[in-house]
Amino acid sequence: MLQKIDRVNIGIKEIDDMLSGGLPKGRVILLSGSSGTGKTTFGVQFVYNGIKNFNEPGVFITLEQNKEKIKEDMRSVGMDIEELDNFNLIGGSVAEVMHFKDKTKAKVNDFLAEIEEIIKQTKAKRVVVDSLNLFLILFKTEEERRKALLSLCQILSKNKCTALLTCETKENTFDLSWYGFEEFVVDGVITLYNVKQGQVFHKGITIRKMRGVNHSESIYPYKITDKGIKIYTEEPWPVT
Amino acid sequence: MLQKIDRVNIGIKEIDDMLSGGLPKGRVILLSGSSGTGKTTFGVQFVYNGIKNFNEPGVFITLEQNKEKIKEDMRSVGMDIEELDNFNLIGGSVAEVMHFKDKTKAKVNDFLAEIEEIIKQTKAKRVVVDSLNLFLILFKTEEERRKALLSLCQILSKNKCTALLTCETKENTFDLSWYGFEEFVVDGVITLYNVKQGQVFHKGITIRKMRGVNHSESIYPYKITDKGIKIYTEEPWPVT
Amino acid sequence: MLQKIDRVNIGIKEIDDMLSGGLPKGRVILLSGSSGTGKTTFGVQFVYNGIKNFNEPGVFITLEQNKEKIKEDMRSVGMDIEELDNFNLIGGSVAEVMHFKDKTKAKVNDFLAEIEEIIKQTKAKRVVVDSLNLFLILFKTEEERRKALLSLCQILSKNKCTALLTCETKENTFDLSWYGFEEFVVDGVITLYNVKQGQVFHKGITIRKMRGVNHSESIYPYKITDKGIKIYTEEPWPVT
Amino acid sequence: MLQKIDRVNIGIKEIDDMLSGGLPKGRVILLSGSSGTGKTTFGVQFVYNGIKNFNEPGVFITLEQNKEKIKEDMRSVGMDIEELDNFNLIGGSVAEVMHFKDKTKAKVNDFLAEIEEIIKQTKAKRVVVDSLNLFLILFKTEEERRKALLSLCQILSKNKCTALLTCETKENTFDLSWYGFEEFVVDGVITLYNVKQGQVFHKGITIRKMRGVNHSESIYPYKITDKGIKIYTEEPWPVT
Amino acid sequence: MLQKIDRVNIGIKEIDDMLSGGLPKGRVILLSGSSGTGKTTFGVQFVYNGIKNFNEPGVFITLEQNKEKIKEDMRSVGMDIEELDNFNLIGGSVAEVMHFKDKTKAKVNDFLAEIEEIIKQTKAKRVVVDSLNLFLILFKTEEERRKALLSLCQILSKNKCTALLTCETKENTFDLSWYGFEEFVVDGVITLYNVKQGQVFHKGITIRKMRGVNHSESIYPYKITDKGIKIYTEEPWPVT
Amino acid sequence: MLQKIDRVNIGIKEIDDMLSGGLPKGRVILLSGSSGTGKTTFGVQFVYNGIKNFNEPGVFITLEQNKEKIKEDMRSVGMDIEELDNFNLIGGSVAEVMHFKDKTKAKVNDFLAEIEEIIKQTKAKRVVVDSLNLFLILFKTEEERRKALLSLCQILSKNKCTALLTCETKENTFDLSWYGFEEFVVDGVITLYNVKQGQVFHKGITIRKMRGVNHSESIYPYKITDKGIKIYTEEPWPVT
Repeated sequence: MLQKIDRVNIGIKEIDDMLSGGLPKGRVILLSGSSGTGKTTFGVQFVYNGIKNFNEPGVFITLEQNKEKIKEDMRSVGMDIEELDNFNLIGGSVAEVMHFKDKTKAKVNDFLAEIEEIIKQTKAKRVVVDSLNLFLILFKTEEERRKALLSLCQILSKNKCTALLTCETKENTFDLSWYGFEEFVVDGVITLYNVKQGQVFHKGITIRKMRGVNHSESIYPYKITDKGIKIYTEEPWPVT
Repeated sequence: MLQKIDRVNIGIKEIDDMLSGGLPKGRVILLSGSSGTGKTTFGVQFVYNGIKNFNEPGVFITLEQNKEKIKEDMRSVGMDIEELDNFNLIGGSVAEVMHFKDKTKAKVNDFLAEIEEIIKQTKAKRVVVDSLNLFLILFKTEEERRKALLSLCQILSKNKCTALLTCETKENTFDLSWYGFEEFVVDGVITLYNVKQGQVFHKGITIRKMRGVNHSESIYPYKITDKGIKIYTEEPWPVT
Repeated sequence: MLQKIDRVNIGIKEIDDMLSGGLPKGRVILLSGSSGTGKTTFGVQFVYNGIKNFNEPGVFITLEQNKEKIKEDMRSVGMDIEELDNFNLIGGSVAEVMHFKDKTKAKVNDFLAEIEEIIKQTKAKRVVVDSLNLFLILFKTEEERRKALLSLCQILSKNKCTALLTCETKENTFDLSWYGFEEFVVDGVITLYNVKQGQVFHKGITIRKMRGVNHSESIYPYKITDKGIKIYTEEPWPVT
Repeated sequence: MLQKIDRVNIGIKEIDDMLSGGLPKGRVILLSGSSGTGKTTFGVQFVYNGIKNFNEPGVFITLEQNKEKIKEDMRSVGMDIEELDNFNLIGGSVAEVMHFKDKTKAKVNDFLAEIEEIIKQTKAKRVVVDSLNLFLILFKTEEERRKALLSLCQILSKNKCTALLTCETKENTFDLSWYGFEEFVVDGVITLYNVKQGQVFHKGITIRKMRGVNHSESIYPYKITDKGIKIYTEEPWPVT
Repeated sequence: MLQKIDRVNIGIKEIDDMLSGGLPKGRVILLSGSSGTGKTTFGVQFVYNGIKNFNEPGVFITLEQNKEKIKEDMRSVGMDIEELDNFNLIGGSVAEVMHFKDKTKAKVNDFLAEIEEIIKQTKAKRVVVDSLNLFLILFKTEEERRKALLSLCQILSKNKCTALLTCETKENTFDLSWYGFEEFVVDGVITLYNVKQGQVFHKGITIRKMRGVNHSESIYPYKITDKGIKIYTEEPWPVT
Repeated sequence: MLQKIDRVNIGIKEIDDMLSGGLPKGRVILLSGSSGTGKTTFGVQFVYNGIKNFNEPGVFITLEQNKEKIKEDMRSVGMDIEELDNFNLIGGSVAEVMHFKDKTKAKVNDFLAEIEEIIKQTKAKRVVVDSLNLFLILFKTEEERRKALLSLCQILSKNKCTALLTCETKENTFDLSWYGFEEFVVDGVITLYNVKQGQVFHKGITIRKMRGVNHSESIYPYKITDKGIKIYTEEPWPVT
């Protein structure tokens, strides 16, 4: 009999069920969505649950937001990052990001080496890069961006990390990514929607691609609650 | 128990309710909308109410409009800026803006330093930049514009200001911003719409994103009255 | 009690009523519309009525059309420009425009100085620039065009002129301007539409923005008659 | 009493009626339409009728088609150009056009001078340029193209010619011109449509702009028959 | 009485009827359609029928496909090209095309001279260029492409050939050509559509332009059968 | 009687039936689809079935994915690649691809020579390139990309391989390819759709072009199961 791909529990039961058991282990998944859909919350929850429930160290790499703000925001959705020893929140200060932005190509490799170093030091099994857009904006051509994303994926795979790369998408589209090629490089795509119906905006989550895994093809409603992302797979759309 | 994010009252009861208590303190919020939706009025009202009702000094930085015109316009919507000591209206004359436009990159930093200086001198707790577009147009690439916006946000955060950055959006779209990335950098987005229905244009306000805060997902009608922005959360859409 | 903004009567009763008393005095208003909507006629009527009914001298700056043609066209819609002493029709011949187009940046300032000179000499209170597009086409970047428009507005404001800048818009859109930023720089926008319904084209007028002024939000039908622009605020849409 | 603009009969009764008496004399009119709508036929008919019925010499300047083909095509729609002494068909051979395309800017002025020379020699009162697109394609920027079109219009006006400039428009749009600015430079626009309804294509004609002239705002069906353009103003749309 | 344009039978009765007798003799016709609509088959059929039924030699110039593949494909739709002496299939091998692509402008003229030479040698009356896109892609600007197409048309006309130029169009549009100008240069346009209706794709043929010829304005269904293109002018749409 | 084109069984009965017997032998087929539609699975299945059921050696060239991941993924859909001797999986590691990306034009030819070499060594009859996009991204202009694709096709044809080139297409379009020209170069196009209906995404397969072969024009639903691609030609759309 053929062996199946191992799984990693996100720790949100409904999405793990939609994935027939969780994310494929050691794979890189795009978590795309427009502004305000809760990509950061989802990503933190993935790392947070890994530490709390599965004893897996994690790394959350933020390129845009201030670390203090993230901690404050996460407290508001029920997760106290600072209480966890193995939650490695890196990057994040504007100064660092700006410094990074002046790095040459050689230094981009330094940055990738740095990520690998941290993963090794922390023995991280779960990694989030928030956001992929800020990483890719450093490169000028589609070719360079593809190559950079491939390098990032290679490092994550080599170290057996299961990774989420958050990806901003434009408002009011069903795009899977910002540049339009990211979805082809990664192993899977989970998309968060923000859809206007009449005078109300509703949120929906769906799995658009997941190599090697049977998965739901439906969009389910979800909300950002004070206990983090909550998905409603049993209720009619939209949730009220 | 987890501590919640502190709030700042805008002073328009309906929008404060939509935000379950006001804007998150010390955060930078995008106030986007197409031409004629009342972004300037909303911004002035935010600073004005802070001074009148909460004794919080404020700074209103205008990059496009003449200071005298703003004072005149605000009188027409019920706010006499000049009667308030702590209303710091800066920038604004065409000459200054044009002078500013010839500044080099080094001088952009001077400009940011200048903003910080004023905030410190005035002990401002509320800041409005009207408009972000005119600030960002000084930069040539998306990378530079992201960096500039990050710097601006850093200065505002460091000084514990709650800030509104007005942002022009194109007519007849549901875009959140002009360049399409601003919404990802800031902590929240309030959007003002101008929607044609039959032969009448209606205005609507909604919260599209607000990190760390539970908020309404609905669009509510509003009008620009001679007492400023008035929001109708209890009435059916459109208001007549 | 707060003082209100002074008004200037356009002299077409219906639009003055839509503006709750006329244009705000000393402000710059965009008059946008696609081809054939009567922008030139509206502009001439504004200056013409100022002279005839309010004894206010006016300047009409044409950048595209021949002066003789404008006079001829205006006679066909009931206005004999030549009978009025204070109607200052300047620019207009192709040769002049072409000459102007070869002007360097320094000379653009000469051109602006020239406009200011004429306004001072004629003591003009009403000014029309027909069209803003031909003025802005001289500049290469959005930054330069914003700056140029700001300079033009500054000169008009400094001299206490109430001004209409005609602005061509693309067919079959609800755009407010050609470049998409003009509406943010000016104090108000009146838009003329040309809408295809079945096999007939109908014209409609609306006020999209008017800082400091309460105004109608509706689109009203209008026609170009042999007595100039005629607006139908009392009749159902479309007028037949 | 005010004098009205003189008129020139196109010689197709229905369109002359739609224009309340014909084209305004000495003006330049854009005749726009997508491929196969009969712009060339309409233009030839205008010149042909001028000679036959009003004894007005005419010039038809072709930039794309072979003169022999035009003669042959026009015979198929009932007009024998060669029988008329005053029908001046110029340009047209591929070689000439290609030669012209290598002309420098100085030579473009030669070309315009040549057109003027021919108009003077032939005492032409009616002029058609078929097509304006091929003329404008010689210029690189919108500014240059606007200037070129202004020069062409100036020459035609100075010589008191009533002119039609045919203008190709893109399929399946309601555009008035190719570049999007031509309609603002000319004195009027007549548009020919080719609209798909179910599995049939229908042709329609309308007047979109005509300075100084009262005109119909409706689209009327027309056909290209063996007697030239035939318009159906009395019949319901579409004609069967 | 006026002489009519001579006709050339395509040899597919229904399309000849739609053209009221066939293609206009000595003219250049664009045969446009998206991928898989049978442009090559239609083109071969035109040449094939000319030889078989009218004893007119023909030239089929292929720029993209291998000659052997074309022969094989045509056998599958009922036409054995090799059995015909006067079917001149030229170009076609990848190597030749690639060689051609490295030709300079001077050599493009050689290529045109070569086409003319072959036409003269073979006394061809029917010519197909498959596809025009590959020919035009050699040129960098719209001006150069227009010029090249004009030169090609001139050579074809000078040699009294009736020609079909196949033209790829983008999926899911009603475009007439790839670049958007080809339809204005040629004498006629026949378009092949591939339209999705529900879960099935249907093919339709229509004549969009045909100078000097009365023609149908309808879209008729057709199929690619093992006897070539078959058009259904008597049956309701779609054919099942 | 005319000989028909030989066929190659894909080994998925339903698609072979849709093709009235399989792919045309020795031809190059585009297999296009958006992210997550199973292009890689379909391609592997084509090579896998060739080896298992028809004893035809095959080559699968991967340019984006890691070989180990492909093997793992394919096990999850029922195909154990490693058990097959004649399944030649080449390319694939990120490092190799990146190395390849730095190759000069000369080296691109080396790459093509390498492919040919492998085909000859392995006596491959079935070849898959996954994906064509990554191959074409190496070239800067449409001309170069067309030429590169033509070269690739020539090599495949010369060696009598039946080939599938997977091609990424943008989300939510009915495009046949990424650049918009690939479909014209190849001999056939099979397209995989991912269509949102209500809150569910459905997959559909269709044949958009297949030179020399009678084929279905319908879209049929399919799923990616643990036994690979499964097509439902007998059931109503969508499959539930």
